Amino acid sequence: MSQSRMVQIEQDILGKNNQYAAANRQLFQERQILALNLVSSPGSGKTSLLTRSIDDLKGELPITVIEGDQQTANDADRIRETGVSALQINTGKGCHLDAHMIGHAMESLQPADNSLLFIENVGNLVCPAAFDLGEAHKVAILSVTEGEDKPLKYPDMFHAADLMILNKTDLLPYLDFDVNKCIEFARRVNPDIEVLQLSAKSGEGMDAWYQWIRSRMV
Amino acid sequence: MSQSRMVQIEQDILGKNNQYAAANRQLFQERQILALNLVSSPGSGKTSLLTRSIDDLKGELPITVIEGDQQTANDADRIRETGVSALQINTGKGCHLDAHMIGHAMESLQPADNSLLFIENVGNLVCPAAFDLGEAHKVAILSVTEGEDKPLKYPDMFHAADLMILNKTDLLPYLDFDVNKCIEFARRVNPDIEVLQLSAKSGEGMDAWYQWIRSRMV
Repeated sequence: MSQSRMVQIEQDILGKNNQYAAANRQLFQERQILALNLVSSPGSGKTSLLTRSIDDLKGELPITVIEGDQQTANDADRIRETGVSALQINTGKGCHLDAHMIGHAMESLQPADNSLLFIENVGNLVCPAAFDLGEAHKVAILSVTEGEDKPLKYPDMFHAADLMILNKTDLLPYLDFDVNKCIEFARRVNPDIEVLQLSAKSGEGMDAWYQWIRSRMV
Repeated sequence: MSQSRMVQIEQDILGKNNQYAAANRQLFQERQILALNLVSSPGSGKTSLLTRSIDDLKGELPITVIEGDQQTANDADRIRETGVSALQINTGKGCHLDAHMIGHAMESLQPADNSLLFIENVGNLVCPAAFDLGEAHKVAILSVTEGEDKPLKYPDMFHAADLMILNKTDLLPYLDFDVNKCIEFARRVNPDIEVLQLSAKSGEGMDAWYQWIRSRMV
């Protein structure tokens, strides 16, 4: 297949996705739903971050969750144990959620007005960067076990995100991870990116994350 | 774009890739080059595993390396510090290496006959599973910080791999990671997968990995 034909196909796919994303965004705005698209490598701790956040916030906010994984409903099961509604999307061979899937999920989930919607994308630092889901913000989660160079090696994702969460800070004493260098690398690809450091396991730093969310609810 | 058109495009791309992969495989066999395709999430420690392996093996085997990343030549620079030849491929928006890229890299690298070729793929547990590079084996590296459920959530990759390396075992005392459960999950998607546990940082378990490589050199 020629390079120009490939570029054309890519543009067709992204163009179609952007139409669905615009419709999602309009619906989120009309119903004042704050949609956060959580993106990261596999194993960065997205689901643990979500279950702890839901436990701490569900008393003050209605929350729903869309879970993306190639296979299994494990994550949606973990989320439902917190008592909130969650819908699992299995992407099969696919490496990311797309806006069309989110539109369908909204029909089933029926989130309340003035609520918080977490979308946990497929664990992948490449593909989800290009696919707008209509979210208010992409939140990139980077575990400190992954090394501080990831923003430079996967720049599209950190460029697309408004917030970088450095997770698993409880492990910092056992790692060679330079927090300041990581933040510098992230700002090199995205000067405006906000950064929070936390441990979803120990709970350290979670309050600042909750404040970040509250300040974005209308 | 229709679903059937998408499937056709996918088949065209994979079919073309398989032709290049077959040519690479023939060249590797003729010249007795053991090509290992290292696949994992970002930050699993592939490059650290490689630099330590090269330091320990370069006295007994000729080694060359192909590095895949979206951006930067950081990894090839780290490899070259060990004294072996490395070629960096930047995939830009792409989420995996393909066989055509490897064919081109071989022309530049010119590995010796009876040598070991490490191919470090883009950090991604989804896309590289579908793309045969002509390698003898895919080796999936899973850091124990990523959680034991990854083989179930990303089954294509663990199905495609002949060996799973559990890396960063030095961190096990600080984690809730069930090694036996992880191995059980991996064997559920691939009953024949071999498993090695090691820490490229502490050096524990590296000898078994070197034996695994030696037994596959002709």
